[in-house]
Amino acid sequence: MSQTVRGRYTLVSGDLYAEVQTYYAWQVRRVDALDIEGFAQTFTEDGEVWHAGGSVQRGRQEMLAGMRASLPRYKDVAVRHWFDHLLVEADADDPDTLRVSYYTLVALTDRGGKVSFQPTFSVDDVLVRREGVLFTSKRVIRRDTPGPDPHR
Amino acid sequence: MSQTVRGRYTLVSGDLYAEVQTYYAWQVRRVDALDIEGFAQTFTEDGEVWHAGGSVQRGRQEMLAGMRASLPRYKDVAVRHWFDHLLVEADADDPDTLRVSYYTLVALTDRGGKVSFQPTFSVDDVLVRREGVLFTSKRVIRRDTPGPDPHR
Amino acid sequence: MSQTVRGRYTLVSGDLYAEVQTYYAWQVRRVDALDIEGFAQTFTEDGEVWHAGGSVQRGRQEMLAGMRASLPRYKDVAVRHWFDHLLVEADADDPDTLRVSYYTLVALTDRGGKVSFQPTFSVDDVLVRREGVLFTSKRVIRRDTPGPDPHR
Repeated sequence: MSQTVRGRYTLVSGDLYAEVQTYYAWQVRRVDALDIEGFAQTFTEDGEVWHAGGSVQRGRQEMLAGMRASLPRYKDVAVRHWFDHLLVEADADDPDTLRVSYYTLVALTDRGGKVSFQPTFSVDDVLVRREGVLFTSKRVIRRDTPGPDPHR
Repeated sequence: MSQTVRGRYTLVSGDLYAEVQTYYAWQVRRVDALDIEGFAQTFTEDGEVWHAGGSVQRGRQEMLAGMRASLPRYKDVAVRHWFDHLLVEADADDPDTLRVSYYTLVALTDRGGKVSFQPTFSVDDVLVRREGVLFTSKRVIRRDTPGPDPHR
Repeated sequence: MSQTVRGRYTLVSGDLYAEVQTYYAWQVRRVDALDIEGFAQTFTEDGEVWHAGGSVQRGRQEMLAGMRASLPRYKDVAVRHWFDHLLVEADADDPDTLRVSYYTLVALTDRGGKVSFQPTFSVDDVLVRREGVLFTSKRVIRRDTPGPDPHR
């Protein structure tokens, strides 16, 4: 954290970087395959998702209900979440707690092959490692807006 | 594999993750530069490509013929293949055989600077390492389709 | 370098790969947040940017002047630079000097949520590590053009 305060990035080991990327590659396949139960299980039981629109889902049951309500929206499109520019920081006191932020871009391909994109978002996650497996315990999603960004 | 069956991701070392990413960065530059001979050489001599449309190319000679036939399509566009969300698994019995899956997005920029995108695809590769260098021995390309995805 | 001449990629360690990715994740957040002072400080004091259009900025002061002049263009759009396919090579004689090349895609989201893309570019950077921190000392940006690419 202190490095970030000084306007610097925090180094991450290659192994930790690959672990986090692999975790997200797995998690994203679940949501993009509309496997909402599998996706919910990549969160902790009490995991929270703070959506860009202002709503908050607390716990896997609320997440599942929210995702089930959204499923009809994806009936005729293949959705793919793209991530980039991960910054990974292990908690100074607990190496099993990670703060990760990244860019997202969501590509939607319809049955005719036409591709469109949702507005871009930035995400801040808290991940926890339990028995060697990562889970998301908190996710805050922010829509990218024009102008200087106080969060970055 | 057993981890995947249990609905988990498989850890990969930082070195292996960087090796695979670097291999793809190199391979993709070849195809995007329309260097079809160089691209074919990133496959094993008997490498196979299973295209989303159903055709299969077996061996570098068939690949080269197929790519030569496609070249006119790229006369007026710069094509760039984007990859994301790599999952890398070394074969349990042979560390020189890797199974890798990833997302692709193909951006086409025309001479006027207009960008368009092909439908998104998911790819499953088998890579083999020979004398320290990776080659693709099998590539299966699937077009992303709406709805639950039985392959993920 | 010799490996590249022979038509091969150069291996990079997981730690170095993660370091470079993390550096760019940090640098890109600065420019996308329109934090032009912060962005300029990710370059060496005498850092150079060779733009695709032909202009060259030499040193942080010229960079800042150029970016300040461009700011009005980003008044109504959220800009996000995406990177892919990094190739990282440490200098054979100086491990604190790195040559990195990568793909870029720039997504612009307007206030209504509409996403558009700039033409794609390829970038060649020289990075230097000073007291453990990376800085860009030279950046050459090339617009991707149709046809065989002599630079790749």
